Amino acid sequence: MRTVNAYAAPSATEPLVKTTITRRDVGPDDVMIDIAYAGICHSDIHTVRGEWGPIEYPQVVGHEIVGHVTEVGANVTKHQVGDRVGVGCMVNSCGECEQCLAGQEQYCLKGNIGTYASVDVDGSTTQGGYSQAVVVDQDFVLRVPESLDIEKVAPLLCAGITTYSPLHHWKAGPGTKVAVIGMGGLGHMAVKIAVALGAEVTVLSQTTSKEADSLRYGAKAHYATKDADTFEKLANSFELIINTVSAKLDMQAYLGLLKVDGTLVNVGAPPEPLDVPAFALIPRRLSWAGSAIGGIAETQEMLDFCAEHDILPETELISADQVNEAYERVLSSDVRYRFVIDAATLA
Amino acid sequence: MRTVNAYAAPSATEPLVKTTITRRDVGPDDVMIDIAYAGICHSDIHTVRGEWGPIEYPQVVGHEIVGHVTEVGANVTKHQVGDRVGVGCMVNSCGECEQCLAGQEQYCLKGNIGTYASVDVDGSTTQGGYSQAVVVDQDFVLRVPESLDIEKVAPLLCAGITTYSPLHHWKAGPGTKVAVIGMGGLGHMAVKIAVALGAEVTVLSQTTSKEADSLRYGAKAHYATKDADTFEKLANSFELIINTVSAKLDMQAYLGLLKVDGTLVNVGAPPEPLDVPAFALIPRRLSWAGSAIGGIAETQEMLDFCAEHDILPETELISADQVNEAYERVLSSDVRYRFVIDAATLA
Repeated sequence: MRTVNAYAAPSATEPLVKTTITRRDVGPDDVMIDIAYAGICHSDIHTVRGEWGPIEYPQVVGHEIVGHVTEVGANVTKHQVGDRVGVGCMVNSCGECEQCLAGQEQYCLKGNIGTYASVDVDGSTTQGGYSQAVVVDQDFVLRVPESLDIEKVAPLLCAGITTYSPLHHWKAGPGTKVAVIGMGGLGHMAVKIAVALGAEVTVLSQTTSKEADSLRYGAKAHYATKDADTFEKLANSFELIINTVSAKLDMQAYLGLLKVDGTLVNVGAPPEPLDVPAFALIPRRLSWAGSAIGGIAETQEMLDFCAEHDILPETELISADQVNEAYERVLSSDVRYRFVIDAATLA
Repeated sequence: MRTVNAYAAPSATEPLVKTTITRRDVGPDDVMIDIAYAGICHSDIHTVRGEWGPIEYPQVVGHEIVGHVTEVGANVTKHQVGDRVGVGCMVNSCGECEQCLAGQEQYCLKGNIGTYASVDVDGSTTQGGYSQAVVVDQDFVLRVPESLDIEKVAPLLCAGITTYSPLHHWKAGPGTKVAVIGMGGLGHMAVKIAVALGAEVTVLSQTTSKEADSLRYGAKAHYATKDADTFEKLANSFELIINTVSAKLDMQAYLGLLKVDGTLVNVGAPPEPLDVPAFALIPRRLSWAGSAIGGIAETQEMLDFCAEHDILPETELISADQVNEAYERVLSSDVRYRFVIDAATLA
């Protein structure tokens, strides 16, 4: 067992505080990772504040983790000491169900084990990446290509794969028109990845304040959704819409932007139900779908794809003691586009 | 111009009455059909009562039409006098848009022309099948195989294609498990067609009162949705669910019955929006879709498929003067499973 520094939530209502947690000894299939950087995801905030259900406290969150291997178990063949590696939203799954066997561990029929706030195989609660080190089964550790700037790469492990997976699954590529709703941590990754996949990308953001960014990341157009004209101008335009917004949108209006046979995919998850009339889907054979992160092999594929295409998130580096302030800025959308904690500041 | 007998709605609130309407002269591309039988679809009732928006009166409805060709225009090559033919929900479309060119006239980007209550190319309002004859462009006239009992075949033109199209599009077949919500005019066709496609079929009906029918039509199981256990027993069971019910169901409960990557397709269209939380879709990459009738080529394919597999709707034959009584029985679900008007009784 190893004791490491971490930032943890003592309860649903208190700020995160510096503390220590223990990491298990490295088992035969395990990899010990010294964490270099950890991204801040909106999910971290929902989780520690109990907004997605009650959790155990103290809780360390963070599921966008990058660092270096410092120790490997006897059976480990996939990683070596010194390797640059990453960990995303999962640290284990049953490995035996049809979904795991198909490389879709994110849809494990027994439920995968989340990187934090989940019950681990030994019954303990998993603790996430706002810490100095973590021990993870080798199968859930990703290789992080050296060409990707280590200071910026961490958000690919959640924001990257969450947008890459549906873009890939629903075949965004040359000849397809894709819209991205919301230009935040997920949205800006969706734009960069969809552009690299060869799709023609349009950003649908509340205002035009981020238009220059959209165009710089390769989008062909940026429209303000506060402008009602947008929905008339863009009617019947897209094969695929990726909705990264976790708020209750007028789904019927957005579905109207799809072409016949188009699909709108939610990766953002507002807590309240969305009102969708069947009449919005039937006359043009539309689909409304959801998608969760991605499988391990697909996450590796995404990292390699980002290396090949020089894709990185836009990040703002902070020290660990700025995490509570960063949370407030995430909640007020005051970040372009992802905070990354420098784990060296946990020492 | 030809004057024919018909049953028409004088207004949204009055019963249908016997009257006469005129049919246009047969143009170069037209086919005149003497109608033998016309099915009664729930849509007919919604339409004449103005429940799907205001319409012109008097209005003759009916879009499940079968009869014989009595006259053809100079350019007609697809049909001959004496042929047994059918007409479904559409009588024309633009013929030029990408959807029409792809054989998906039901999704014509300019809007197809409905068999009734639509604006025809000459500006008149189309009048449907509760009549002695109809004149239709040859491209929207289907060949009805002789092996299909002419007294029963009419409902294939709407109920048949409306269920065949999504079953075919979403690849119901050997090795797939399909559920059908609602055991009515559409539902019983969905069961028969899905069974013939090779899928394992489960019927989800409010009660078990139609269980014997379900099993006779080839379903493997029939469950009562009034029994809450049903949703636990069948969780994570189906690749595809066809929802034929035009009422506000608990969508989250039904989505729970899908396997990972499954699709629930609405062909029934309740007027009010359905509440669907994104959280019901995201964790298992589910899709909720809609589907409308089918293209002309696909409708012909469906008729040929039904002939090959001896599939016919279950019908109750009525005379034209029983149409108002039949409407009341449709509304109280007191029909197994489709009324067909004997057009000879219009004489």
